[in-house]
Amino acid sequence: MNPSLPQTQRRIVLAQKPDDKLTPEHFRLETAELPALSPDSVLLRLRYLSIDAANRAWMQSATYRGQLATGLTMAGHGLGEVLASTSPLFQPGDLVTGDLGWQDHAVLPAAGLRRAAHSDPLSHQLSVYGISGLTAYLGLSRVGRVQAGETVAVSAAAGSVGVLAAQIAQRMGARVIGIAGGADKCEWLLGEIGLDAIVDYKAGNLGKQLRQAAPDGVDVYFDNVGGDILGACLFGMNIGGRIVCCGAVSQYDGPTPPHGPRGIPGLLVTKRLIMQGFLVHDHFDARDEALDALRSWVEAGSLKVPEDILEGLEQAPRALIGLLAGDNRGKRMVRIA
Amino acid sequence: MNPSLPQTQRRIVLAQKPDDKLTPEHFRLETAELPALSPDSVLLRLRYLSIDAANRAWMQSATYRGQLATGLTMAGHGLGEVLASTSPLFQPGDLVTGDLGWQDHAVLPAAGLRRAAHSDPLSHQLSVYGISGLTAYLGLSRVGRVQAGETVAVSAAAGSVGVLAAQIAQRMGARVIGIAGGADKCEWLLGEIGLDAIVDYKAGNLGKQLRQAAPDGVDVYFDNVGGDILGACLFGMNIGGRIVCCGAVSQYDGPTPPHGPRGIPGLLVTKRLIMQGFLVHDHFDARDEALDALRSWVEAGSLKVPEDILEGLEQAPRALIGLLAGDNRGKRMVRIA
Repeated sequence: MNPSLPQTQRRIVLAQKPDDKLTPEHFRLETAELPALSPDSVLLRLRYLSIDAANRAWMQSATYRGQLATGLTMAGHGLGEVLASTSPLFQPGDLVTGDLGWQDHAVLPAAGLRRAAHSDPLSHQLSVYGISGLTAYLGLSRVGRVQAGETVAVSAAAGSVGVLAAQIAQRMGARVIGIAGGADKCEWLLGEIGLDAIVDYKAGNLGKQLRQAAPDGVDVYFDNVGGDILGACLFGMNIGGRIVCCGAVSQYDGPTPPHGPRGIPGLLVTKRLIMQGFLVHDHFDARDEALDALRSWVEAGSLKVPEDILEGLEQAPRALIGLLAGDNRGKRMVRIA
Repeated sequence: MNPSLPQTQRRIVLAQKPDDKLTPEHFRLETAELPALSPDSVLLRLRYLSIDAANRAWMQSATYRGQLATGLTMAGHGLGEVLASTSPLFQPGDLVTGDLGWQDHAVLPAAGLRRAAHSDPLSHQLSVYGISGLTAYLGLSRVGRVQAGETVAVSAAAGSVGVLAAQIAQRMGARVIGIAGGADKCEWLLGEIGLDAIVDYKAGNLGKQLRQAAPDGVDVYFDNVGGDILGACLFGMNIGGRIVCCGAVSQYDGPTPPHGPRGIPGLLVTKRLIMQGFLVHDHFDARDEALDALRSWVEAGSLKVPEDILEGLEQAPRALIGLLAGDNRGKRMVRIA
């Protein structure tokens, strides 16, 4: 191997699985030798890690991927640059995304990686042009089937997917209510982001706030949180409404999930509601359409892309713990290099 | 008015709304003068009352209709014969269905009634050719989108909709698991009705029974009950599965509904499930297709239509109370005349 290439890696290992709240003690920073490049693999320098609520859900149980094991590098989506390759798929200098793990360098099979485009800023590859933006767009168009003139509510509206989904629904012609926690975030969503109305779930009386914010009811609810907020929105849905089940962040950072909301399935029947869970990958046949739309809105300045970037691999545990507490505004990432 | 026509009616009034379990004391039998025939109305002799779990849900709260009021004739779907008419829509001798109420004769506006066909037996107009059969067929085809080779689970499988839905799913090429309470009902479903497998929810360990009955998982769950059975089925669903929310009979006979099942929305996301509530009327554009299919199966003897008929108007309260306890096999009705 080229001696100018890195021989070692720093990595963060899941030292112990949380029984309840996640803390820094569940992680351990290690330095290790990098393995040799086997056939059809690449050596990567990581540029950005994507910090996602799903990272915590992977510790609870098998989800759409197997449950995480302790003693291994913490899993996580990221953006990296190819330094060396034994695969015909990638050349040094290429940008790739995939499950790169919480580490500064990695040797990974080429087959699990996807080529990423260059953009300015590069971080947009993990936010608006990455899983967050695609999830927001495809969830609204494919699952929510939002129509102009409808009312859309979005929870975790200051979060990575939510802040994009709320604005995209506006671009689709909907009146949009953002649901978030705390007066600061809510003011930011109304002022800076320009949503039509907000509900501060920390201010209490969720049902009443929602009725005031959406006096004509809610046609599409883009749910990132589950729990009590999902419960309140169920009661506010219009007949024929659609609930886009994107995630359940209120239920990840603890032991087994609690009971579901009251009114299931009764309200689903009487209001003829559809609740549909989705993973963005199931809708990748419309990926190019989504990226074209996102790019046109970003370039026209009509879609703001807030990013919340922490510096350095060692910040990753704190970044995730804070995300689960709702610290972030927009897409949280860790810049590695 | 023709003096050979009846001048009085017997009717059952909702005397008091139940706070918890429904009992006979919540009803009162009255005799009253029949009102005169106003324009565009009909005088009916009731033939059959349909006894439905929804009758109880209407007492809890507004559903797809307003909440029932006390002191008025108990609402209920039924089949009647026109004795006199001031409407161009109906002639004496016509059969009609609609919300005829718990009474032996009624004067009702013609606009709310639908013409019924003759059949032998006539009661089939309220079972397989009525709301039960249409709900089963349209729920499976329009909402569940059952495909040949799939596995379908049906709860309240010995009930009016369930026993038809389970057989119709078999006719559509699915392997069908019936969920019911008690060894007798389950044996009847396996033997007499011919389902592929059964789960007895009264025998405990619902999850394990379901895994044994459906080792390859469940693609479509036709839910008539909600509650713990819905919860167990959620965990048994395959990726991409559909849950047809038809009713929540486990939650009607009590105070406000309890919490929903664990795993909502988490399992909806990881398994990409669709839960969809429906009312049969929303799919009446396909009513003729449904009736044609139902008629062909009934006439070929490949769809059994169990009916559970009590005699006499005064039996209606007991018929409903027993239905809520799961006493019936197939469509429960009260024969009035």
